[in-house]
Amino acid sequence: MDTQTRLLKGFRDFLPDRMAIRNEVINRLKRVFESFGFDEIQTPSIEYQSVLLGKYGEEAEKLMYLFEDPGKRKVGLRYDLTVPFARVTSTYTTLPTPFKRYQIQPVYRADKPQKGRYREVYQCDIDIAGSDSPLADAEIINVIDKSLKSLDFNNFKIRVNSRSVLFSVMEKSGITNDLWLSAIQSIDKLEKKAKEEIEKELSDKGFSIDEVKNIFKNLSKAKPDSFLNQTIKFAKDLGADSIIFDPILSRGLDYYTGPIFESKVEEPKIGSVTGGGRFDKLLQSLGGPDIPATGTSIGLDRVCDVIEELKLWPDIANTNSSALVTVFSEETVLASIDFAKKLRERNVNCELYPNANTKLHKQLKYADKKGIPFVITIGPDEIEKDKVSIKNMKTGEQNAADYDTAISLIKSANAKS
Amino acid sequence: MDTQTRLLKGFRDFLPDRMAIRNEVINRLKRVFESFGFDEIQTPSIEYQSVLLGKYGEEAEKLMYLFEDPGKRKVGLRYDLTVPFARVTSTYTTLPTPFKRYQIQPVYRADKPQKGRYREVYQCDIDIAGSDSPLADAEIINVIDKSLKSLDFNNFKIRVNSRSVLFSVMEKSGITNDLWLSAIQSIDKLEKKAKEEIEKELSDKGFSIDEVKNIFKNLSKAKPDSFLNQTIKFAKDLGADSIIFDPILSRGLDYYTGPIFESKVEEPKIGSVTGGGRFDKLLQSLGGPDIPATGTSIGLDRVCDVIEELKLWPDIANTNSSALVTVFSEETVLASIDFAKKLRERNVNCELYPNANTKLHKQLKYADKKGIPFVITIGPDEIEKDKVSIKNMKTGEQNAADYDTAISLIKSANAKS
Repeated sequence: MDTQTRLLKGFRDFLPDRMAIRNEVINRLKRVFESFGFDEIQTPSIEYQSVLLGKYGEEAEKLMYLFEDPGKRKVGLRYDLTVPFARVTSTYTTLPTPFKRYQIQPVYRADKPQKGRYREVYQCDIDIAGSDSPLADAEIINVIDKSLKSLDFNNFKIRVNSRSVLFSVMEKSGITNDLWLSAIQSIDKLEKKAKEEIEKELSDKGFSIDEVKNIFKNLSKAKPDSFLNQTIKFAKDLGADSIIFDPILSRGLDYYTGPIFESKVEEPKIGSVTGGGRFDKLLQSLGGPDIPATGTSIGLDRVCDVIEELKLWPDIANTNSSALVTVFSEETVLASIDFAKKLRERNVNCELYPNANTKLHKQLKYADKKGIPFVITIGPDEIEKDKVSIKNMKTGEQNAADYDTAISLIKSANAKS
Repeated sequence: MDTQTRLLKGFRDFLPDRMAIRNEVINRLKRVFESFGFDEIQTPSIEYQSVLLGKYGEEAEKLMYLFEDPGKRKVGLRYDLTVPFARVTSTYTTLPTPFKRYQIQPVYRADKPQKGRYREVYQCDIDIAGSDSPLADAEIINVIDKSLKSLDFNNFKIRVNSRSVLFSVMEKSGITNDLWLSAIQSIDKLEKKAKEEIEKELSDKGFSIDEVKNIFKNLSKAKPDSFLNQTIKFAKDLGADSIIFDPILSRGLDYYTGPIFESKVEEPKIGSVTGGGRFDKLLQSLGGPDIPATGTSIGLDRVCDVIEELKLWPDIANTNSSALVTVFSEETVLASIDFAKKLRERNVNCELYPNANTKLHKQLKYADKKGIPFVITIGPDEIEKDKVSIKNMKTGEQNAADYDTAISLIKSANAKS
């Protein structure tokens, strides 16, 4: 393939089969978000560099797409949806408070491409700005619970913890303030590694044997603080039964200020599918107003990967057509046009084969390749008898039928699937 | 507003009211496209410069966002959806033929920002690759017709013409080959300017009085050629009654090879809302395979502007919530949680006010601002009587009702609107 036609490394095209899954995921998620009163917003792909820079740290900035636009302005592609959200809350002073929004758009990160990691990824964020109450966190946790259930995920857990729980473990264990983060980063790996490995890592970092022992002792006795307790109670009252308290969960501790939540499916092993928490100081630090906020991201592409890998939706069609109306010959084209028109008037999705001189077996092959369930043919014989020939592509059965019978057959098969 | 929080010039945020319109437009259009058997694809925002450059001419390239990615690859943002479509047809050799796809994604053009013109615009393309038959053009014209009708546009026309019709007018008028394009560009303005102005423009360009006279004479006698005649007949047979032959329509003649089509609404005067035609050589010239193609673009943002300006959908909600469940006090919060849960279980979209110590009048103000039709309050009195207080925000009426009555009231009001 010559360079003219190459797909850029780390990017991908979404062909109809994948789009069918992604669209179904988005539709189901939107219904959940909207049932909780979240409204959708979208922001531009391009923002001023002054909006984007100094927010994520040096390492992240190396992964950003930064450039000059044709007017020599310093701009870049959005790196996440939180910074644009902060900008929006500061740009529009007439938004309702609390402001409950969701946003589903791609973000751009020039990360090393590898299996399952792309440079343009659809992100989906759901946030409430303007509430400092555990009720808001409980609503977010319920959105996560209902979202994953709506996708037919049955085997998942939402782990919750709080920044203050972890800090109090460190304090009780006699760790000095400046080492809390380092210790917590090691603890975070307990989910994937053996306790012995973490103990060794901590000791390599310079923590004493007593300190390490204390950390594990206090972790095992850790309890939610009162804010997290209320969050968990409210979330369960609202119906989130998949929630579990997990004191080793730590996430991006640098900007979370209260409860944090993360969810994983049992199978396949692909890391977390959602992650979030309370970030009361972040909007202001990003240029927004000084208001508390809480929310979650859902990894949309990762969720689609799970559905594909577990074959959760085996019946999802990669075509939208219920029937192909073939064109037998130039002489019979009007009969085919007429039948396609009738099908569409009866709200049956159908394709009219867009060529009058293609051999019939090629047209059937097209239907087969696209997975179109029925093929209608109207040749001179059928025209004479005022019938159509209808072929069920699954069973191979082919019959003559009058117009209405054929349409009803297609409609009822479609309703069943 | 400090520079940290500025929206980039020529770009815009989509807040919930506009998103409600745009989402409804996209949903309705997708239903039409899918009823014709078109499948959705998406391509990356970023492509190699080798894919993008040399395709649109120098002027266009000045408007492109071209830059180096963090790996020093020369890349750029997509400028339209046709070049990515051509790349896709060449990247994947196993796609069905004919290949019928639609694509709805933003494109990027650093055009001078002005009213109604933005630098990131949603485009919507519907194309059939792999058919050289007028049946394909007729299907596309029907997609346009049904799309605009589905948006409740009643007053529109789809003008059709063909490149060959215009060329034959020029030939008959004795114009030399190399001046056809120049004459046609002037003719194209007949829709907006008086005939006298066009005559003067042509004469300024150096056309003789006789030549100008001949052009107008032959234009007035111009008839569709046989391919266009078939296209028009098939399109009408399929149900497109808004189609008219218009010999002055010319569009981007440089790449169209057969029928061309454009549609306009009568009001407001905002130019065309769709434009397209047959482009049998374009895919190959863009790096794709040598296959014929025909299709149309729908100006999605412009269509949304029409709907907003004509107030076509006055009842479109900018909130998805049917009810707000207020929180009377910290003591009563569980009753509010319980009722919100019940509403959601009965598939009523509702918001639970995410704060337990906000004054009730502020919560009502929030509902009013978001246009939420019902407000439910459950204070100590209501809890004692096992009732809720339900307020109709439109009429101001407020009543006590038992749980089921309140839920039914909200559900039935919602069903009516």
